[in-house]
Amino acid sequence: MNVRALWFSREQLHLVDQRELPRRYVVRRVKRVRDVAEAIRNMTVRGAPAIGVAGAFGMALAAKESGWTAERAAKLLRSTRPTANDLFVGVEAVRAAWVAGHDPLDAAERYRSRIVEECHRIGEVGAPLIDNPSRVLTHCNAGALATVEWGTALAPLRVAHDRGTDLFVWVDETRPMLQGSRLTAWELAREHIPHAIIADNAAGHFLATGEVDLVLVGADRIATNGDFANKVGTYEKAVLARENGIPFYVAAPFSTFDANARTGRAIPVEERSDREVLQLAGQPIAPRRSVARNPAFDVTPARYVTAFITPDGVVRPRGVARAIERHRTRST
Amino acid sequence: MNVRALWFSREQLHLVDQRELPRRYVVRRVKRVRDVAEAIRNMTVRGAPAIGVAGAFGMALAAKESGWTAERAAKLLRSTRPTANDLFVGVEAVRAAWVAGHDPLDAAERYRSRIVEECHRIGEVGAPLIDNPSRVLTHCNAGALATVEWGTALAPLRVAHDRGTDLFVWVDETRPMLQGSRLTAWELAREHIPHAIIADNAAGHFLATGEVDLVLVGADRIATNGDFANKVGTYEKAVLARENGIPFYVAAPFSTFDANARTGRAIPVEERSDREVLQLAGQPIAPRRSVARNPAFDVTPARYVTAFITPDGVVRPRGVARAIERHRTRST
Repeated sequence: MNVRALWFSREQLHLVDQRELPRRYVVRRVKRVRDVAEAIRNMTVRGAPAIGVAGAFGMALAAKESGWTAERAAKLLRSTRPTANDLFVGVEAVRAAWVAGHDPLDAAERYRSRIVEECHRIGEVGAPLIDNPSRVLTHCNAGALATVEWGTALAPLRVAHDRGTDLFVWVDETRPMLQGSRLTAWELAREHIPHAIIADNAAGHFLATGEVDLVLVGADRIATNGDFANKVGTYEKAVLARENGIPFYVAAPFSTFDANARTGRAIPVEERSDREVLQLAGQPIAPRRSVARNPAFDVTPARYVTAFITPDGVVRPRGVARAIERHRTRST
Repeated sequence: MNVRALWFSREQLHLVDQRELPRRYVVRRVKRVRDVAEAIRNMTVRGAPAIGVAGAFGMALAAKESGWTAERAAKLLRSTRPTANDLFVGVEAVRAAWVAGHDPLDAAERYRSRIVEECHRIGEVGAPLIDNPSRVLTHCNAGALATVEWGTALAPLRVAHDRGTDLFVWVDETRPMLQGSRLTAWELAREHIPHAIIADNAAGHFLATGEVDLVLVGADRIATNGDFANKVGTYEKAVLARENGIPFYVAAPFSTFDANARTGRAIPVEERSDREVLQLAGQPIAPRRSVARNPAFDVTPARYVTAFITPDGVVRPRGVARAIERHRTRST
């Protein structure tokens, strides 16, 4: 059975609790928009496309609760996390349907289907970029858990693996929240795709010693000039890939592209609690008198990106603005 | 009171157990060479200069035990960890004294004093490179715990701090063993030097956003062309520093310079147990079916190094071979 990050049934949003994996597979059932907002904030659900879909269903739930207007529900959901563009797109899709008198739940389901379909197409578009055999480095989790199904960075790997490509995946563990060792490794292990987890510090070593053919990551927001935000550490890997002459690809659905952000400077970078760095599972791993800084994302300039893998095809950084425009024209 | 990593008294080597910090300050007493070897292997004591001194005292202990020749004891101690040059220098200093009929314990004490004195001089040589105010990024622990007293990278910071320089230190947590958050932060907190711990992934973000003035690290082995090995992740930070136009300094005593290694390719990189990556603070953090790769060091090419801070002065990468030769001529 394929991994799914979330689904809606019996008037409830079902979320795989991503804080518990890989130790336990727990599904949380959520009925109220406030609980959806909290699940996004506390990272029960995470990954830009997935929180966009969660936000869409949060709007649909608010429409059935008493006391919410579309504007108030949208404001609550948009306030949970600032960086991923998809959250704003998912919330807006349902807000617009709601105020136009359409069924919000229908709109949320349509938004979910659109994201799943776009991720599937990312897999088809990206798979031909992966030679046979290939050793691919990925950062954080840009898999089914981050996107509902298929994944962004992992979608081309899934399609290539299904077609018999001999794959090996280097999985950055991705401190502080360990989405690589906890979530990406879990997805790869389920599908028997060979992989090894590495400390984030070791990525440069393997890039420099010729053991990586390709770097493939997801994104949280892409500006029109091709600068993009993704999980903190992505910028480091992008610089190191270019330094070693290794292609660096970014896979994302159109909900991640922000037509209003002209460069990376327009992308807000969330800073999260320093406890994520100072503790592990409630246990302190640093002196009590020490503090931490914890930016959850970083911004990678377009010049380090070989290309974006979109549902409509492979797009060079200079082509991003045109690709956004083309997609918008076709959608409306 | 100053931090010391180890000391010899009452016929025993005393080691601060660096696996226990910062939660507990525990001193292990060791009487036999086999136990010194095990303490180096399991990282009770770590840091290139410190394991060199531990190796020297291990030789002195072997000389008092029955059943050891100088050659056999040296072979045991040299087998514990392959990368740090200092271990081989410390063991050799006492082996040579032993076979020449001198007191091995005297030789070990002289070696310890020499390393402490060299680290103190590194502090004096390096302090003028640190502007007032300065925000300095460091990786792993290159402090007193890594070198017996003073530190290598931390020595110039200590001297500058004592002289009233307004310092702020970015501490890479340094997965997988967390020497940054556990040890460097502990040393800095004790001395009230302002600092913040960051996930290793965040270093690039702060380097790119103009929040770091200087990068300062230690080393485990330096080749004559200026390539050097240090804790895994150092190469990443060096590339990112150069990419952002930020000076990158490497501080080391002469025991870390290897006259027999012409380039970084001659430096063996230790690969340690994958449990260090698959577990954090003893807790599993990855799927049971996943494996990890765990290189403990990486090699940074000389072109990324602004200069080496040595006890004899600041040395550009091209001057390393000459500096080694000059030091050797003076010492003999």
